[in-house]
Amino acid sequence: MIKLVALYRTPPDAAAFDTHIDTVHTPLVRAFPGLRKLEITRITGAPIGTARYHLLCEMYFDNKDAMDEALASPQGRAVARDLMGFAADLVTVFHGDVAD
Amino acid sequence: MIKLVALYRTPPDAAAFDTHIDTVHTPLVRAFPGLRKLEITRITGAPIGTARYHLLCEMYFDNKDAMDEALASPQGRAVARDLMGFAADLVTVFHGDVAD
Repeated sequence: MIKLVALYRTPPDAAAFDTHIDTVHTPLVRAFPGLRKLEITRITGAPIGTARYHLLCEMYFDNKDAMDEALASPQGRAVARDLMGFAADLVTVFHGDVAD
Repeated sequence: MIKLVALYRTPPDAAAFDTHIDTVHTPLVRAFPGLRKLEITRITGAPIGTARYHLLCEMYFDNKDAMDEALASPQGRAVARDLMGFAADLVTVFHGDVAD
């Protein structure tokens, strides 16, 4: 299993960000072909100091080919376009093999 | 459900880091009282550019009280002590509510 991870830093306007995530972005993400699981985590703090992150979105696919196909699909391009429009300066995206 | 997230930047010596994670740190983490699930992701890249992260470790607990108790336990203090010894300058730790 592979997962694609989008980690968002705390936005200047968290309420507007959350509304966009919930009503526009997440529905686009759910349309990814081959998406096996979606886990959204609303970051609430840190054991030491304060968290500089606001949201973690994790998208699971069977393997790298399935993830690459999803990203290259019309739905994937819609996700990327939307992401760049509202969070280009807030988001870090990476992927990895779920080992455990 | 709450999860505690440890995100590690790419270490200078990835092989030594992985050995320590696999043989020392992860066994300590598995001893957390109240740990419901542990998910380890070995980061392999990014859709655009290169990933600056190496490993993502996610520890799930029933709620914040359970997480706080785990962190304050002898096992939790052992995890924190080990973490500060091998990855103080590499790790970011935060927690959040798993929404979906």
